Amino acid sequence: MNADYLYKRVSESFEKQSFLTLIGAKIEHVEKGKVIVSCERKETLLQQQGLLHGGVITTLADISGGYAALTTMPENSEVLTVELKINLMRPATSNKIIAVGEVIKAGKTLVIVESTVTGEDNKIIAKMTSTMYSTHS
Amino acid sequence: MNADYLYKRVSESFEKQSFLTLIGAKIEHVEKGKVIVSCERKETLLQQQGLLHGGVITTLADISGGYAALTTMPENSEVLTVELKINLMRPATSNKIIAVGEVIKAGKTLVIVESTVTGEDNKIIAKMTSTMYSTHS
Amino acid sequence: MNADYLYKRVSESFEKQSFLTLIGAKIEHVEKGKVIVSCERKETLLQQQGLLHGGVITTLADISGGYAALTTMPENSEVLTVELKINLMRPATSNKIIAVGEVIKAGKTLVIVESTVTGEDNKIIAKMTSTMYSTHS
Amino acid sequence: MNADYLYKRVSESFEKQSFLTLIGAKIEHVEKGKVIVSCERKETLLQQQGLLHGGVITTLADISGGYAALTTMPENSEVLTVELKINLMRPATSNKIIAVGEVIKAGKTLVIVESTVTGEDNKIIAKMTSTMYSTHS
Repeated sequence: MNADYLYKRVSESFEKQSFLTLIGAKIEHVEKGKVIVSCERKETLLQQQGLLHGGVITTLADISGGYAALTTMPENSEVLTVELKINLMRPATSNKIIAVGEVIKAGKTLVIVESTVTGEDNKIIAKMTSTMYSTHS
Repeated sequence: MNADYLYKRVSESFEKQSFLTLIGAKIEHVEKGKVIVSCERKETLLQQQGLLHGGVITTLADISGGYAALTTMPENSEVLTVELKINLMRPATSNKIIAVGEVIKAGKTLVIVESTVTGEDNKIIAKMTSTMYSTHS
Repeated sequence: MNADYLYKRVSESFEKQSFLTLIGAKIEHVEKGKVIVSCERKETLLQQQGLLHGGVITTLADISGGYAALTTMPENSEVLTVELKINLMRPATSNKIIAVGEVIKAGKTLVIVESTVTGEDNKIIAKMTSTMYSTHS
Repeated sequence: MNADYLYKRVSESFEKQSFLTLIGAKIEHVEKGKVIVSCERKETLLQQQGLLHGGVITTLADISGGYAALTTMPENSEVLTVELKINLMRPATSNKIIAVGEVIKAGKTLVIVESTVTGEDNKIIAKMTSTMYSTHS
């Protein structure tokens, strides 16, 4: 599977997710086992202190991990998040946050991923580990 | 602390969160140690299969747990999510989802909560456990 | 499947686990979707402050959840822990701890469980959620 | 703080934990923010298929992370595990397993760590993220 194919596969699924459009998530990079997505601070995405909401950060981590998993799955598979655990370590004061999702164990049915969310200063905002499930159609 | 006071405390913070307005989250119930919030299916909140996005479900679980924690904290405290872990168990096919957040251990600095997200049929969509942190101002 | 059969199934697997003998874990109760196990404080199971070690508490939570999952799986299945998340909420000052494992979603391949560990005073020591995997032989 | 001091601090606490003696855990390396521990396969540490028990793997991950956290805390602090989440990815078929615990965010009260458990072949057996709490005496 080449990079163009993987990018197309991820972006076609990505564009079907209206919630990702709503929060303005963007695909930055796709390779086998690794997907990077980003999101910019907007007035509609904030929590009570004016910082990017934890729900946005978690969503970004989740999709970077989910799509990283998808790149290791057979064609016609869909990816589902079985569970995710995220530690929110620093407030997201940055104008842009970036989530790097990587596969750490690619199984046939289950794919274990982690995702690191950083700001423009490269400091870690959050770290997620997650179990993804492959459904074959 | 009476119920009116707790409701006011939660709703004032809630209304400052623009992201909660964006997803249409609503407060259903507030009591000491327990907060219920809900959210309706909208075209902008979906994943690639047309179901409510996991990020929305997780956000709802998080805020129900966070505000449940807040009701046990001293006045002038703010609540931060240290970490959350959520198992997504069933697709959210319902038109409305409800998250019931409850405190299971109220400490001085850390409050441990869980949240159960169900659909209108009362089936469990997701279950979260989370560690909340109290910051005093 | 009757209760005797389920008890036999769990206890046969239980007895093959030398580590459970080492820590003195005991089966207290088995029913479909629910298994209770216990463990007593011993001089060999302690942490630096003389309390039951978190590793013992976590092991007990894990096996109560794993065996609860097994009771919902087809014969000849084995159960594997995919992941577990545990919040350790109170020190285990009790002479005996009890872990109640319960299935909250029984799928074909994945079974989601939770386990609550309490002391003799019924106070919650720890709460776990976990994803179990069924392997068919 | 020099390496000898940190090693002494960790090993003095380590030796007080009878459960670590029971499972035969050993300190391999101590530096600020990073602790490596190991454990060998023994007949008393197995699960039903004759592999190292998940409870042993989790304990090893926990203590590597806990002691990594301790090396960043003020003198006279004790470290407590607030929560841990571990993904068990491969069976522990190795005769020896090694857990590398590292601090990813050192706060005043909370320290976030991760731990990677590998076998002698360097393949990842398990990955943990955890929240540690510093108690000052």
